[in-house]
Amino acid sequence: MTAPDRFASALQRKIDFKTKPLGALGRIETLAAQIAMLQGSLTPRMKTCQLTIFAADHGIAAEGVSAFPQEVTRQMVLNFLGGGAAASVFARSVGAALRVVDAGVAGAPFGAEGLIERRIGAGTANFLTGAAMTEAQCQAALAAGRELGADGDWDAVAFGEMGIANTAAAAALGHKLTGVGLDVLTGRGTGLDDAQLVHKRTVLERAAARTGDLAPAQSLAEYGGFEIAMMAGAMQGAAAARRIVIVDGFIATAAALAAVRLAPETRGAMVFAHRSEEQGHRVLLEALSAEPLLALNLRLGEGTGALLAWPLLKAAADMLNEMASFEDAGVTGPV
Amino acid sequence: MTAPDRFASALQRKIDFKTKPLGALGRIETLAAQIAMLQGSLTPRMKTCQLTIFAADHGIAAEGVSAFPQEVTRQMVLNFLGGGAAASVFARSVGAALRVVDAGVAGAPFGAEGLIERRIGAGTANFLTGAAMTEAQCQAALAAGRELGADGDWDAVAFGEMGIANTAAAAALGHKLTGVGLDVLTGRGTGLDDAQLVHKRTVLERAAARTGDLAPAQSLAEYGGFEIAMMAGAMQGAAAARRIVIVDGFIATAAALAAVRLAPETRGAMVFAHRSEEQGHRVLLEALSAEPLLALNLRLGEGTGALLAWPLLKAAADMLNEMASFEDAGVTGPV
Repeated sequence: MTAPDRFASALQRKIDFKTKPLGALGRIETLAAQIAMLQGSLTPRMKTCQLTIFAADHGIAAEGVSAFPQEVTRQMVLNFLGGGAAASVFARSVGAALRVVDAGVAGAPFGAEGLIERRIGAGTANFLTGAAMTEAQCQAALAAGRELGADGDWDAVAFGEMGIANTAAAAALGHKLTGVGLDVLTGRGTGLDDAQLVHKRTVLERAAARTGDLAPAQSLAEYGGFEIAMMAGAMQGAAAARRIVIVDGFIATAAALAAVRLAPETRGAMVFAHRSEEQGHRVLLEALSAEPLLALNLRLGEGTGALLAWPLLKAAADMLNEMASFEDAGVTGPV
Repeated sequence: MTAPDRFASALQRKIDFKTKPLGALGRIETLAAQIAMLQGSLTPRMKTCQLTIFAADHGIAAEGVSAFPQEVTRQMVLNFLGGGAAASVFARSVGAALRVVDAGVAGAPFGAEGLIERRIGAGTANFLTGAAMTEAQCQAALAAGRELGADGDWDAVAFGEMGIANTAAAAALGHKLTGVGLDVLTGRGTGLDDAQLVHKRTVLERAAARTGDLAPAQSLAEYGGFEIAMMAGAMQGAAAARRIVIVDGFIATAAALAAVRLAPETRGAMVFAHRSEEQGHRVLLEALSAEPLLALNLRLGEGTGALLAWPLLKAAADMLNEMASFEDAGVTGPV
């Protein structure tokens, strides 16, 4: 046996000899195995989690593709910092740290205390008529993300986003990365009605027709957002640092798909938190062969679903580290 | 409007005016509403959770319906007390308290420190040939459970079980309570192979043929277990004390169904933690119109699934109590 095979075999034996029927902890067992493999340890550490929320604006918002006005991106950044947003509340509730990054919100810099400024620009350009960002901007966002994904000393990291119209950007990006039609990938976002949904899809189809087949980095520059590109970079940086990456909903999964297309080794660090109500999410999950842990009809973003999955990761590692074996506990095995 | 209508309307308004798109937190919103309705408060308390594990033995184990020998019930009680079982580990992981009740383990009383003794007998009788317990024993188990379900001062309570052969008892009980066939309700429990599964089903079909239609209390006495009856009582007691009852897997759901058939008002306090891999679970969930929160392929019992759902309940109440409204946060609503 090779060393990795010996490790995998010792790991499976450790899980199977715990005081429970074989396989009875289902996905908690596979999570524990993923964590142990990523850390290369039979006693992995899974005690701390940080959520980073990336905020940015989108030129495509000018086309009326969101139920909320663009100013909400800026207002929500202040809500995150003030502790009143869903992600702020859930982070406290599950014991995760939270930080907020301005990746490129429209208007002037905030100058707000506690906000991490990594502005690539004051929002992207409108991708209906041209590229959302330049290649240089895209590379700068990825690089800033890689740095942010690897700093600190966290066992797991989650990434959330805020950006009015970013389900439109994620749908267009997902379309270019997977080839799946925009009829499937375009969803209601923050709450479009039927007519608004048709309009959003029409806008996205016109925008997609501007370009042909694109490489992953080009797709990101043409249709992505500053927060999406920075999140993709952060996932790469975190995976390279052998941290578990908890992937949130539709937009985070679009970033995850871009990250994996750019750096396939990123995939092994990823855990998919939940199946969003946003209709295109399942397409992106399938493209990543991902089976989410939760299905709670969430469609909020901000990393809220990722935070709710964090206790499961902690429990999985605790199982591996703290649960008794049949031998330790003097429990008889199957007859 | 009546007072309850006014309360429900104020509650929905509070949820809808939080800084998120309408309904975007999906099942977290419906959980928050259930908690608030149960406590009759727009600022419900959901900070503490206790798991009680009820252990007991089953005469039907003599028919070879389990993959594990009967002595494992007793060994696992000591494993719970020693902190090495999955439920012990998960309780620490999610911050829940844990206590263990001997409802009727085979053999002599343990006399173990920390164990709560409520023994109805040294295991039930073999229900293949006669009633598992007398009516008096069944009533005593229900009464002990009601008392245990209502004591202390917990916001949420979860109930787990340990008892070799108790999936057989739960299947027979579920069959009598719902009328659904034992071909659907009989599952592999702790890991029966195909031939063993056929044997288990045959045993259960013969046992079920012993009796005709039964009232809920009679079904419990004929086919239940001491831990199942005590758990059903505990759910009634907890619901009467207006505590959230987190229902675990197949056996706990059989107890929940018995509890609701005996006292329908118990249903409103119940939250269903997860969809077990044990095949009969979906039948019992359907009979209770229950949609579980998690689907993690668990089939362990002990309250492990209930513990993993606890952080979601806490997050739901925290959302209601701590999340800012559009007005508080100065965030603009939909255009």
